[in-house]
Amino acid sequence: MTTYPPEELAGVYRAIRERRDVRSGFRPDPLPQDLVLRLLQSAHQAPSVGLMQPWRFILIRSEEIRRAVHVIFQQASAEEHQAYSGQRAQLYAKLTLQGILTAPLNLCVVCDATSSHGHSLGRHTMPETALYSAVCAIQNLWLAARAEGVGIGWVSILDPDYIKSLLKIPPSVALVGYFCMGYVDHFAPEPELESVGWERRLSLEDVLRSETFDQPWKGTGKP
Amino acid sequence: MTTYPPEELAGVYRAIRERRDVRSGFRPDPLPQDLVLRLLQSAHQAPSVGLMQPWRFILIRSEEIRRAVHVIFQQASAEEHQAYSGQRAQLYAKLTLQGILTAPLNLCVVCDATSSHGHSLGRHTMPETALYSAVCAIQNLWLAARAEGVGIGWVSILDPDYIKSLLKIPPSVALVGYFCMGYVDHFAPEPELESVGWERRLSLEDVLRSETFDQPWKGTGKP
Repeated sequence: MTTYPPEELAGVYRAIRERRDVRSGFRPDPLPQDLVLRLLQSAHQAPSVGLMQPWRFILIRSEEIRRAVHVIFQQASAEEHQAYSGQRAQLYAKLTLQGILTAPLNLCVVCDATSSHGHSLGRHTMPETALYSAVCAIQNLWLAARAEGVGIGWVSILDPDYIKSLLKIPPSVALVGYFCMGYVDHFAPEPELESVGWERRLSLEDVLRSETFDQPWKGTGKP
Repeated sequence: MTTYPPEELAGVYRAIRERRDVRSGFRPDPLPQDLVLRLLQSAHQAPSVGLMQPWRFILIRSEEIRRAVHVIFQQASAEEHQAYSGQRAQLYAKLTLQGILTAPLNLCVVCDATSSHGHSLGRHTMPETALYSAVCAIQNLWLAARAEGVGIGWVSILDPDYIKSLLKIPPSVALVGYFCMGYVDHFAPEPELESVGWERRLSLEDVLRSETFDQPWKGTGKP
């Protein structure tokens, strides 16, 4: 049998179910180094196309850098805010969208698609799988962090070129994601965007198809 | 405390460490429907930008469709093979790169970035985060599957346009990944691409940076 014992299986499902995008409530105490390395090791165990391992993790504690990132966020968020009007613009103004300065650790995940590691296997027809490998690493990190009581928030309201310039990331290396990390005393029972009324969760059936994209899920058929 | 009890925490780390890209050894017996839905529910609990939930899951059991996908794979793999020469071309010929016909279930994950769900929040500066949300869903699925004894293999050696045409996926919807799924009696202790000598795993230190991309990891500093 290759199935895990019940407690271990429950842990996997629990982390998946209880993981949240955390933007507030970070405790200021630094994350222990052995914990951070354990989380990053989990990220590093992600699948990658051709065993390319194109992910690179930039750990950012510098307050100077984080302040500069925060300015880049403020610019992008002000522009995004202008894309909304009426009640939705009012709702946008109330959202907490990042914890760049309040979280003790920031993390920038980039993808070095120029690396010869992996010898391009699997990337001739779908080169974007290098980027997707880095995203798999992010999700590993996120789940391990949840199980360890560490909150992670993904900040996408940033101009990638400004971040790349600030963090001295070469043009050939792609910014995949920017994250805030820290201990939290509480994880919300549901996504904040759901509880504040920004968006509702879809049912599973809404996102399933049978055999081809145009065929709705047939709940009675064998999947 | 928001940390999980030891057995649940161990389960999370174990799934991350023991997950493999499975291309062979699939058992032919179908996966029970409740299991498949449990795995897809895990995928559906992934983070998504603006709570957009842009992933759509096409479950494919039809042998006719799988045969057509297999032909598309063979074409792409023959072309990829030609990109190598000498010993590496010989090694490529020995790799098992897919289980399209041997696995009882195939899954195509697509991203509907045209969906108005999420109201574009977080996508004004980084629209690619819609695709990345779908990849997070894939990694959730992969980890839950490992814990359940289900092998998953990602097939990227496919022409996306041919697959989209075959599966009636509209041009505006992106193919993110194509997968083979089934019970396996055994998971390899290390990635196959490592054991056959295609590529080696990097050390964690190789992929860490401090503060900016050009600064190597300072192991003695506080991360």
